[in-house]
Amino acid sequence: MNIDCPEPQLDINSLTAFLDDAFPPEARASLGAVVEIAPGRVRLRLEPTPAMARPGNIVAGPSLMALADVAAYAVIAAHHGPEPMAVTHSLSISFLRACQFESIHADARLLKLGRRLSTVDVRIWQGSEDRLVAQATVGYAQP
Amino acid sequence: MNIDCPEPQLDINSLTAFLDDAFPPEARASLGAVVEIAPGRVRLRLEPTPAMARPGNIVAGPSLMALADVAAYAVIAAHHGPEPMAVTHSLSISFLRACQFESIHADARLLKLGRRLSTVDVRIWQGSEDRLVAQATVGYAQP
Amino acid sequence: MNIDCPEPQLDINSLTAFLDDAFPPEARASLGAVVEIAPGRVRLRLEPTPAMARPGNIVAGPSLMALADVAAYAVIAAHHGPEPMAVTHSLSISFLRACQFESIHADARLLKLGRRLSTVDVRIWQGSEDRLVAQATVGYAQP
Amino acid sequence: MNIDCPEPQLDINSLTAFLDDAFPPEARASLGAVVEIAPGRVRLRLEPTPAMARPGNIVAGPSLMALADVAAYAVIAAHHGPEPMAVTHSLSISFLRACQFESIHADARLLKLGRRLSTVDVRIWQGSEDRLVAQATVGYAQP
Repeated sequence: MNIDCPEPQLDINSLTAFLDDAFPPEARASLGAVVEIAPGRVRLRLEPTPAMARPGNIVAGPSLMALADVAAYAVIAAHHGPEPMAVTHSLSISFLRACQFESIHADARLLKLGRRLSTVDVRIWQGSEDRLVAQATVGYAQP
Repeated sequence: MNIDCPEPQLDINSLTAFLDDAFPPEARASLGAVVEIAPGRVRLRLEPTPAMARPGNIVAGPSLMALADVAAYAVIAAHHGPEPMAVTHSLSISFLRACQFESIHADARLLKLGRRLSTVDVRIWQGSEDRLVAQATVGYAQP
Repeated sequence: MNIDCPEPQLDINSLTAFLDDAFPPEARASLGAVVEIAPGRVRLRLEPTPAMARPGNIVAGPSLMALADVAAYAVIAAHHGPEPMAVTHSLSISFLRACQFESIHADARLLKLGRRLSTVDVRIWQGSEDRLVAQATVGYAQP
Repeated sequence: MNIDCPEPQLDINSLTAFLDDAFPPEARASLGAVVEIAPGRVRLRLEPTPAMARPGNIVAGPSLMALADVAAYAVIAAHHGPEPMAVTHSLSISFLRACQFESIHADARLLKLGRRLSTVDVRIWQGSEDRLVAQATVGYAQP
């Protein structure tokens, strides 16, 4: 495998099935749907739920952290194959704009896919790809 | 006010009331209870709920991120007074051990309480204070 | 100004002059040269010096942190104009590969250019743009 | 070994010798001296040099990043023993106050000492322990 431009091992259906299996149903609904897979990348889309609302009708920061985390997990699973073993090692997120109560996209891109440590860049946006709501860098460890 | 050792402006009851008001009821339950306030510090305790469970009966990382975020918000509110205006600017979290399905404590400590930017250290632990599950550094901006 | 695609206020010569002025000469040499400016972006190139060497003939991590920091400062100065007032508020860096002892590029891109807080993504690479050595997210505060 | 309260394997002299050996002489001088070792902890002291000066007679942020990085490396070496193999995986730093041009202390504390991944909290201060200039969380990977 070319580390710099890895080929996905899963398609949208099998990645979706893997995520449905990995999370309890009550959590799964708030973690977004896989809408695109490409070499080194996965895109999720999330429709906010009422529990995510905060004053001013914006989406809560922790909902975006959870989305960034699952997007990173999804892009690793898509490229390593469905071994449900990776655990989040670290996550750094910067909030850039208030997240409106409308569709949210998360684009996860592999910065490094290692055997033991992987690093993923996640861009969260609304409306258009350059209208960023948050950026996260997520480190995953594979045991 | 002495920035290096600020006095809390709120007690447990009024901080609890402020948090109850700031979050929707369906989110509030998963964000922990205020159990201690001291100069520059607030301690929360969270009993995990079924939606937080992950395979291996551990608590999901995003639940801990949400806890770190609210703990940081709580310590700022406790010292600035109840103005519901601070927004998370950045959050960096390191996961240190699997979080067991039992009581979780979050100790938030002000590293800097500024007029516009505050930085908070959050230690999440189980069982005893030195048994850390995660450490987070959270930046909040006041408009 | 369109925040999502800001126009640079400085060209390469004036940005270089600004940086030459902002840093002491003995530090300036290890901080790279401005080689490109575009809307929302600045590229620096750094030739490693002997003081940056570490065992295995790789470039030390702190040299890359310093490069990320100056690249973020440069892209803010290029778009805000030459006011030497911004200070680093936070920096998170992930190291992805060993940095070889050869030319290093740093691409800084504005994620948000605010009046008081700006956030910059920095990609550090060698050889080709997709051969990343490190990724950093840098927060700057303007007083 | 008790992970929660590990015993140091090196004393000040042997840790100093290890660091002197690990860094080139021209870099070593700007990385501080080991002044204290305790279970899970190492303290470094750094006297700023002219190359670290920035306008306003403050110490440059990257000098503090380099100090945080070496302090984390030192506390791992002190507890794992002198194997010069750990590499920085990630570093997140928050700047809290301007760093004056006087003695700087860095207190590194092991949050987790793992076989493959270690996480270290670093507090940088001047004058007294609670007068923090910066806080960093550093992840190291052992190959």
